[in-house]
Amino acid sequence: MRGIVTRRRYGEGMTTALERFYSVIPAGGIGSRLWPLSRADAPKFLHDLTGSGQSLLRATWDRLEPLAGPDRIMVVTGRAHRAAVEGQLPDLDDHNIVLESEPRDSTAAIALAAAILMKREPDVIIGSFAADHVIRGDRLFRSTVTQAVQTAEAGYITTIGIQPTEPAIGFGYIKTGTQLDVPGAELATKVDSFVEKPDLKTAKRYLHSGDYLWNAGMYISRADVLLTELERHEPEMHALVMELAEAWDDPATRGPAVDHIWPRLKKIAIDYSVAEPAAAAGRLAVIPGHFDWDDVGDFASLAKLNSSGRKTDLAILGENARVLSDASSGIVVSQSNRVISLIGVTDIVVVDTPDALLVTTSQNAQRVKSVVDALKLSGRDDVL
Amino acid sequence: MRGIVTRRRYGEGMTTALERFYSVIPAGGIGSRLWPLSRADAPKFLHDLTGSGQSLLRATWDRLEPLAGPDRIMVVTGRAHRAAVEGQLPDLDDHNIVLESEPRDSTAAIALAAAILMKREPDVIIGSFAADHVIRGDRLFRSTVTQAVQTAEAGYITTIGIQPTEPAIGFGYIKTGTQLDVPGAELATKVDSFVEKPDLKTAKRYLHSGDYLWNAGMYISRADVLLTELERHEPEMHALVMELAEAWDDPATRGPAVDHIWPRLKKIAIDYSVAEPAAAAGRLAVIPGHFDWDDVGDFASLAKLNSSGRKTDLAILGENARVLSDASSGIVVSQSNRVISLIGVTDIVVVDTPDALLVTTSQNAQRVKSVVDALKLSGRDDVL
Repeated sequence: MRGIVTRRRYGEGMTTALERFYSVIPAGGIGSRLWPLSRADAPKFLHDLTGSGQSLLRATWDRLEPLAGPDRIMVVTGRAHRAAVEGQLPDLDDHNIVLESEPRDSTAAIALAAAILMKREPDVIIGSFAADHVIRGDRLFRSTVTQAVQTAEAGYITTIGIQPTEPAIGFGYIKTGTQLDVPGAELATKVDSFVEKPDLKTAKRYLHSGDYLWNAGMYISRADVLLTELERHEPEMHALVMELAEAWDDPATRGPAVDHIWPRLKKIAIDYSVAEPAAAAGRLAVIPGHFDWDDVGDFASLAKLNSSGRKTDLAILGENARVLSDASSGIVVSQSNRVISLIGVTDIVVVDTPDALLVTTSQNAQRVKSVVDALKLSGRDDVL
Repeated sequence: MRGIVTRRRYGEGMTTALERFYSVIPAGGIGSRLWPLSRADAPKFLHDLTGSGQSLLRATWDRLEPLAGPDRIMVVTGRAHRAAVEGQLPDLDDHNIVLESEPRDSTAAIALAAAILMKREPDVIIGSFAADHVIRGDRLFRSTVTQAVQTAEAGYITTIGIQPTEPAIGFGYIKTGTQLDVPGAELATKVDSFVEKPDLKTAKRYLHSGDYLWNAGMYISRADVLLTELERHEPEMHALVMELAEAWDDPATRGPAVDHIWPRLKKIAIDYSVAEPAAAAGRLAVIPGHFDWDDVGDFASLAKLNSSGRKTDLAILGENARVLSDASSGIVVSQSNRVISLIGVTDIVVVDTPDALLVTTSQNAQRVKSVVDALKLSGRDDVL
């Protein structure tokens, strides 16, 4: 081990491991289940979904910035979002924005970031954190990441699993394994296995057993370890990413390399290309996170997030929302200045945007994606 | 009796009574239960609620016009609606539009029309027909009116009661009395009494008894008979209306008379000021109407009207409606060009206008008026 995390304050008493840490923020997903709020040109991460006054992306930046400073955060996003991302993150270094010519899922985004950063700093430790999750308890989050960095330094690909607070059926779970002995990471265990979204009965069993954590898709790892793991399971992908990274920092070579390589990158989530095989081989560690976390996967989740946890509140999102309602639950998202009136509807979801309106219920929130698919099929791309 | 209705064709073989007939269309009500479709500046009667391409007012005109010609229809409406009414009814004679400085309910509107017309033609027979009801079967409607005109000629204030087709609880009922013997009006009976909106059990009893008709608020009467009846029960109102009518047709006297008299007119429905007392005194007759009629009182009624009678249809109203829905019942009214998406909601009512949105259910349709009241109280008159 290179040192011990003292956890006094970030920025002083910092360990060597944390000094080598670099945050990566993949900001790619549209968030189709949040249509028509989330759009191709206004994806979920650019929205303020908590009424905090800042976007999820900006909140992610602010959460990570104290860990290793503003110069050590890389954002991977679509070309179309460059202006919006740079507008929200004025401290983002030009060298630290990776623009995807088209989305290629999380393996491409994270592995390319890892490869680019490793070329710049061979011993870099990276942590990837989605741009569109909501976390409350930033200090607790950072102390958890610090333990994960120590565990990564010890050679493990390390994830942060969220301590469940209810038998959620909307998340995948991580089964924890044997305790590790990593200095500065007292909570680290091996990952026994990943399990898919359970039914309610199974979720209750998971919750009561104490052996399961929610999979929040956060991965902290030495870049070399991550890329070696990728090479084991997806050697072609690995080769393409390394070739692209090699060309990245030279303006003369980047463009041709992107044109040549990007279309050949496989669309695969990093959970499948790296995390699950690593877990099966005993090379994946997990730190339990005790902070509040939500992936805001649909409007039911958004409603919960914005109703002070009380199930009898109608959540209202939108700066200029003018809502007249007798609804005791559900959510209204108002992006227009229209008066919205709800009478005698319960657990309702109303999303009011200038060119599209959604009316559904919390129970049907997961089905919103199917509307986006139907709109695509019918050629109504103008509202996607 | 002055003659017999031959019912060959309107316009030929016409009786003397029908030649003296004048239609009056009170076009006053906003239709608060159809908010936000109906507004103070775009009341129900100006809307096309049937997808026919014409407004309810225009359809009312077209239904009445063959009875006595375009020169014998008078419209009573608010000053604010003059341009819209004249735009929709280009054949409406200047002398036949009565502009209310502010709404004073149906007695003021109908009695004033009767008094103005009686001053012009002492033996005129008037029939008042709401501007915002939907009728299907215009020829049957006109033959029913013709019988009513004959009955009115005989001295009765005559209403047309709709033959019930279901145990509706949203309408008032008319209990029919003894058969009358009016030539040309074989179906005429006295009205036994008016009854308020019943509960379902009572409505079923009414339907099965065969003695009850729906009160559609249509009144046909000699103007002198109507005004004499008003004088009996509301002498002050009668005096004011007669004074106003006396001044009406002279441009020099109308304005001052309106300013002086209008604010003093009592707000009372003609059902209470004239019809119910006349019925109690045995002076009210009724002709059963076998045509389709609806007062389109709320969105549940509008849904039914626009779903081909099938209860498993989602009714969609709006020229440019772009609706994506799995709803099997209810109604969408689209006045914007927005994509409207409904997922997993049944019997839903969605009314989408440029500045206001309503989401409710058919079961709660009657409660829409309460929103209008709440908006008034909160000063949000901009959307009323």
